[in-house]
Amino acid sequence: MRFNGELVEGAWTGTRALHYGDGVFRTGLVLDGRLVQRERQLERLAHDASRLDLEIDPRLGDEVDAQCRDAGQGVLRIVLSRTDSGRGYRPGGSQCDRLLRVSPLPDHATAAWHEGIACAWSPVLLAVQPRLAGIKHLNRLEQVLASRDWPPDCQEVLMCDAEGRVTSASRSNAFFVIDGILVTPDLSFAGVAGMMRDHLIALARQAGIGCEIGLISPDEVRHASEAFVCNSLIGIWPLRSVGSVAFECPGPVTRRMTELLRHPWSGNT
Amino acid sequence: MRFNGELVEGAWTGTRALHYGDGVFRTGLVLDGRLVQRERQLERLAHDASRLDLEIDPRLGDEVDAQCRDAGQGVLRIVLSRTDSGRGYRPGGSQCDRLLRVSPLPDHATAAWHEGIACAWSPVLLAVQPRLAGIKHLNRLEQVLASRDWPPDCQEVLMCDAEGRVTSASRSNAFFVIDGILVTPDLSFAGVAGMMRDHLIALARQAGIGCEIGLISPDEVRHASEAFVCNSLIGIWPLRSVGSVAFECPGPVTRRMTELLRHPWSGNT
Repeated sequence: MRFNGELVEGAWTGTRALHYGDGVFRTGLVLDGRLVQRERQLERLAHDASRLDLEIDPRLGDEVDAQCRDAGQGVLRIVLSRTDSGRGYRPGGSQCDRLLRVSPLPDHATAAWHEGIACAWSPVLLAVQPRLAGIKHLNRLEQVLASRDWPPDCQEVLMCDAEGRVTSASRSNAFFVIDGILVTPDLSFAGVAGMMRDHLIALARQAGIGCEIGLISPDEVRHASEAFVCNSLIGIWPLRSVGSVAFECPGPVTRRMTELLRHPWSGNT
Repeated sequence: MRFNGELVEGAWTGTRALHYGDGVFRTGLVLDGRLVQRERQLERLAHDASRLDLEIDPRLGDEVDAQCRDAGQGVLRIVLSRTDSGRGYRPGGSQCDRLLRVSPLPDHATAAWHEGIACAWSPVLLAVQPRLAGIKHLNRLEQVLASRDWPPDCQEVLMCDAEGRVTSASRSNAFFVIDGILVTPDLSFAGVAGMMRDHLIALARQAGIGCEIGLISPDEVRHASEAFVCNSLIGIWPLRSVGSVAFECPGPVTRRMTELLRHPWSGNT
């Protein structure tokens, strides 16, 4: 293969993430040489891999630990990419290549955890594809398109699917308090189910707060009393506003969830 | 980065095709050390690249020629992958990496050109995403899913979008003769516009056969008198059947298009 004019070789040149996005990934926080929420991350990775019929090599766990130990801190990206099996879309099997990469910690303004962030509505609608919905797979052009051209001072965008259901933010999952009930969108049609979303649903239910998974319209979002987004890196970011609609920020449910989460940064900076 | 446990480095480790499918590609036939339909391929690549706001380095053409000269014959894959700009979906710019890879020529049964192929309906429905429809981009998980588990003796599958429009086959574009008129699906909602599709539309119009681009239902396909699929590698493959419906194979329009095309193999083997 030629890469930018130079002859190169290696198993990576045919790995199917590169050619078809045929694989899954996770993004996780590395602190003190360890992956935060290591077991939950690897469980969720295995879940998504099985949905694409990918088998995980048992060496992955040790490699993740070594990579995190070497890096000390940062953002770990784990990519499982179906192994090359010759030209063409048809997958040759379940084997996959393992890619681990640590990037520097993001430089988030600490105000985000205290004062919340402003969020806009994305003009990009997510296509409805139940066969791939919820999976953190590597076909992410919609998120790339949705990450361009944000209004000034906006730190996230909220996305609907093509049938008008509120689905998620561009790089985080969303929760709302609607009529006093904590609710997060059903991801059976589009969107990515992040590890942190699962974790917060479980924490809320353990604490007796309750959390529903449901269909949410933009109109319901406009009448929500509180809203927040979450992912493994940021923990919880309260939303100050979505478009022209403002919320109590952080509201009582958001504060309670932040306390329960005990994320290394959320609410502690 | 670690790749299957080994420490690796290089610009490719962050290239965005690998992490997001953020790029476009073309597949072309290499014969006698040259890319068949070179200008049309590079024009179509430039068209798709511009839709994702990717700029093509002027060295690409010379690199393609060198790769084809070295290989002599085979299947060239050209991938343009947006260059690494740090972690996150947001694209850092329009620059892209150039990947060129030649695979051996496929071992097609020559009967396909004479006797046609059997085609099944795919159970995988293509998601409707007008922002990406038609582009030969690198988010191809739907085609991967559609390429698994074909019925025996079937050599292609026909795909509809989620709203029931016939769109394309899994790795080729489709044409039908319906009520005496040659027609190919509108790709404004889903699907990939191959170079060969453009070329055949132009050839038909030059020859006074005419070719419509339109919305086609599965029911119209069942009442078609002829059908064929096409791509850069196979040229034209007549369809003997789609599911349980048989066609005249090859019918008169298909034969005429094959003559006009003068593909290195179609109709000549």
